[in-house]
Amino acid sequence: MQRRLKHWGWGYEDQQPSLEEQRAAAAFLTERLGFGSAEPEPPAPLPALPAPRLRVPPGLAEICSATDYDRALHSYGRSYRDVARAFRGRFDHVCDAVARPRDEREVQAVLDWALSSDSAVIPYGGGTSVVGGVEPALCSGRYAGVVTIDLKALDRVLEVDSSSLAARIQAGATGPRLEAQLSEHGLTLRHYPQSFEFSTLGGWIATRAGGHFATLLTHIDDVVESVRAITPAGVWESRRLPGSGAGVSPDRLLIGSEGTLGLITEAWVRVRPRPRHRASAGVRFGDFGSGAEAVREIVQSGLHPAGCRLIDAAEAAVTGAGDGSHALLVLGFESPAHDVEPSMRLALACCREHGGEWERRDGARQEDRGAAGDGGRGGEAVSGWREAFLRAPYLRDTFIAIGVLSETFETAITWERFPAFHAAVTERVSAAVREVCGAGSLTCRFTHVYPDGPAPYYTVLAPARRGEELDQWAQIKQVAADTVIEQGGTITHHHAVGRDHRPWYDRQRPDPFAAALAGAKAAVDPAGALNPGVLIDPR
Amino acid sequence: MQRRLKHWGWGYEDQQPSLEEQRAAAAFLTERLGFGSAEPEPPAPLPALPAPRLRVPPGLAEICSATDYDRALHSYGRSYRDVARAFRGRFDHVCDAVARPRDEREVQAVLDWALSSDSAVIPYGGGTSVVGGVEPALCSGRYAGVVTIDLKALDRVLEVDSSSLAARIQAGATGPRLEAQLSEHGLTLRHYPQSFEFSTLGGWIATRAGGHFATLLTHIDDVVESVRAITPAGVWESRRLPGSGAGVSPDRLLIGSEGTLGLITEAWVRVRPRPRHRASAGVRFGDFGSGAEAVREIVQSGLHPAGCRLIDAAEAAVTGAGDGSHALLVLGFESPAHDVEPSMRLALACCREHGGEWERRDGARQEDRGAAGDGGRGGEAVSGWREAFLRAPYLRDTFIAIGVLSETFETAITWERFPAFHAAVTERVSAAVREVCGAGSLTCRFTHVYPDGPAPYYTVLAPARRGEELDQWAQIKQVAADTVIEQGGTITHHHAVGRDHRPWYDRQRPDPFAAALAGAKAAVDPAGALNPGVLIDPR
Repeated sequence: MQRRLKHWGWGYEDQQPSLEEQRAAAAFLTERLGFGSAEPEPPAPLPALPAPRLRVPPGLAEICSATDYDRALHSYGRSYRDVARAFRGRFDHVCDAVARPRDEREVQAVLDWALSSDSAVIPYGGGTSVVGGVEPALCSGRYAGVVTIDLKALDRVLEVDSSSLAARIQAGATGPRLEAQLSEHGLTLRHYPQSFEFSTLGGWIATRAGGHFATLLTHIDDVVESVRAITPAGVWESRRLPGSGAGVSPDRLLIGSEGTLGLITEAWVRVRPRPRHRASAGVRFGDFGSGAEAVREIVQSGLHPAGCRLIDAAEAAVTGAGDGSHALLVLGFESPAHDVEPSMRLALACCREHGGEWERRDGARQEDRGAAGDGGRGGEAVSGWREAFLRAPYLRDTFIAIGVLSETFETAITWERFPAFHAAVTERVSAAVREVCGAGSLTCRFTHVYPDGPAPYYTVLAPARRGEELDQWAQIKQVAADTVIEQGGTITHHHAVGRDHRPWYDRQRPDPFAAALAGAKAAVDPAGALNPGVLIDPR
Repeated sequence: MQRRLKHWGWGYEDQQPSLEEQRAAAAFLTERLGFGSAEPEPPAPLPALPAPRLRVPPGLAEICSATDYDRALHSYGRSYRDVARAFRGRFDHVCDAVARPRDEREVQAVLDWALSSDSAVIPYGGGTSVVGGVEPALCSGRYAGVVTIDLKALDRVLEVDSSSLAARIQAGATGPRLEAQLSEHGLTLRHYPQSFEFSTLGGWIATRAGGHFATLLTHIDDVVESVRAITPAGVWESRRLPGSGAGVSPDRLLIGSEGTLGLITEAWVRVRPRPRHRASAGVRFGDFGSGAEAVREIVQSGLHPAGCRLIDAAEAAVTGAGDGSHALLVLGFESPAHDVEPSMRLALACCREHGGEWERRDGARQEDRGAAGDGGRGGEAVSGWREAFLRAPYLRDTFIAIGVLSETFETAITWERFPAFHAAVTERVSAAVREVCGAGSLTCRFTHVYPDGPAPYYTVLAPARRGEELDQWAQIKQVAADTVIEQGGTITHHHAVGRDHRPWYDRQRPDPFAAALAGAKAAVDPAGALNPGVLIDPR
């Protein structure tokens, strides 16, 4: 029997901890945080949803579903806001049908039906959006209904070119699915967003997902060789090219289009042999600022660490990777071909100059899921942090059950402005957390770093008032996003825009660019059917 | 007194060699090539041009010119076709006025005048296009005239952020102008296209120019932090961000737009300290294929050489970098911070496995113009090749004078397809050269290399029949471009599309993308005034 995903949270129903296990987790977490309830609240049952507004044509019945479970499962992503609502059985917007095409011909057939029935179309991969990217909000009025197209049945690696180190992969392949198929060829994509277990290649491309590598190849953008998508105006497929200067890049217009221009069905991506050489270290810094200076020097010196996550003292403590007295830099190098110890030594020398201290454990090689950019020899702090990283999405469900508000926001900013930026965010968001929740914490880490600046990632943990969580978070998010935009950052470095980030995205992007994007959309999607309200309003 | 650029060729009028010098060059070249005339033909004087169709308004008179010299100078790029026509005094299309705004306000004023007078507008940087990017072809009919806007007066580095290693630079700054200003801060952009001396930052961004680095940061695209452009729909300016995932990249829509969406006025670009550590080597391979395999292994192993030009035996001989018996790999590493010898040793070990042989000269550091990615310790072959690279555009003028057809075309292709691709190009284009010219050579080098494939660059040298050169080249180019497209390559890796590559570009780009781009253009340039005929036809 097929495992069922939770309609309200992260992972499968059979992964839901027992009440006893939840109580134990609650005791552990509330003690560490200083707030939260010892008695976990149970999730509400799935409510009866309004009747679907669309009737699936008989020819598509086999691949379409209109059950309440399927519709609920596909109508929210996995942000705190999404999980909190679904946990309480609240579904503000639901799609009318979920289609699961098994090949491109069926994608086309579903799209044709949706367009001919004046419906909106929401492309759906893993459903792990944290920005309202798959929620059928803003789809009323002009649309007869909403068809969500779940592409996960398109999950195969179709071709491997081991000479050019590239693979043609269907858009619905999840991280584990595509890695399993690539590993048969001794290859790997090594793109590990936190959502890796459930998110898909097509979703990564549509949302410019951030992956494994902290430097150089930070976004999926950087490994895409060509993309194929089905649009209302026909098939959009670029040539496989290692590089090109032929006008505006067609791929770069699809990458980040978040389902507004077409349904991505497959892509050629650059893959690589599994790393044979790895080195990692956990470096302690007395304060976050010193660590930031060390990181700046490392990336500006031309070293390209695979992992370079600087975690502030409070966050290191929360995740069990520190005792709260020091910031932690999780540093990792990897290579399929060459010893990486020389690079690690150079990076550690930078760290020492800025007051960094570390221990490195010599021992057996660890199997590396890669998310933290480490593996190989590393300190206990490193593995502790890595496990916390992968556990985090599961933990959020428990946080909601015990009344803990838990959400993140992320950005990127140049080095020159980072100190003032970070001070402003810390001051204003911390104040908002205190004011709205009475207590709580704001912590920071760098997920990716560039020669010209870091990508800071902030986590809020605070006591929630049950039933008021959405208001509480909305107030905090408003302050956070306003501050990010006012201080010159981007509203998102890798979480995407979706519907939730629209007010701030609209302040960020150049107006003529928005007009150009709307013009591009109108040309390929004249009905404005594709993911309405995401990035831009349809004309 | 200001130096005058040749209206018909490369460089300044006072750089034109004397007849005696030309005769010496002719003797040297014709002997080496086996064809060409010993008696150089003089360039035709500038002919009287048709009267301009536009009258410059008095308020813009100070910054506008309608002299025959200025109009002729700005109406062609510097392709073989351009130089051959201008050399003979043939101007097929000429702009009606040349504007030289000195600040953004004047750019806006000129644009306003052009739009209000129903004119076409051609943005102009260095005028070094080799693809018809600045020629006012396809500008008749609906347009009352053509205003070419030369942005070279906007040539300043406006701001330097030495913490983030970025600089705000005006679009009209040429390579030497911006490097001179950056060097005051100990910084460099290190973007060295062959046109470096005359081409501009804005031109590089508009055309996705290829620069110094053979790997990683191959195009100007890769160092752009944000762009500012004046469009008919207003100012298009992105935020300075080290990285972002906020929807489709606004910069990536301007980069490669070739003047069709707006006039780029300035950009923030990532700069770097001057390299302190450099290593170079010239590696000989018995055949080009072995060299290609060595290069593939080097880039796939995670080494990032700054220079990695593989030059076939015939081309090495023509440029004086070899004796015709071996292919030459010009390999270079550089770093502002770390010793690069370890990387060079790893790369040379790859070369040895594929039969490569080299000598390395220990000696004083050479001043490195960087175009070949070398400097530091390197063989004589390396410096010989570098000098030839920088001399090439000047040499073309002489080739035309002595009746030698000399032109290049370039592309990119995946490794898997490269051997068959290269065989097809070599066979068909060589046959075309023989058929059209009776003799001549086709040679190849890699200008840039990627983990998934090389960027091959082909050079044709053949005896020209005076007065028939354009037909001769058109026939060869047709075969070359048809073959590149049929065999899966891109019509250009870094020369751009312009007007000359349109027939093949139209076969390459996805149709829905073309519709999207036309929609984007219509939104920001509803009159279709900006660089008509480049990339797409205005609606």
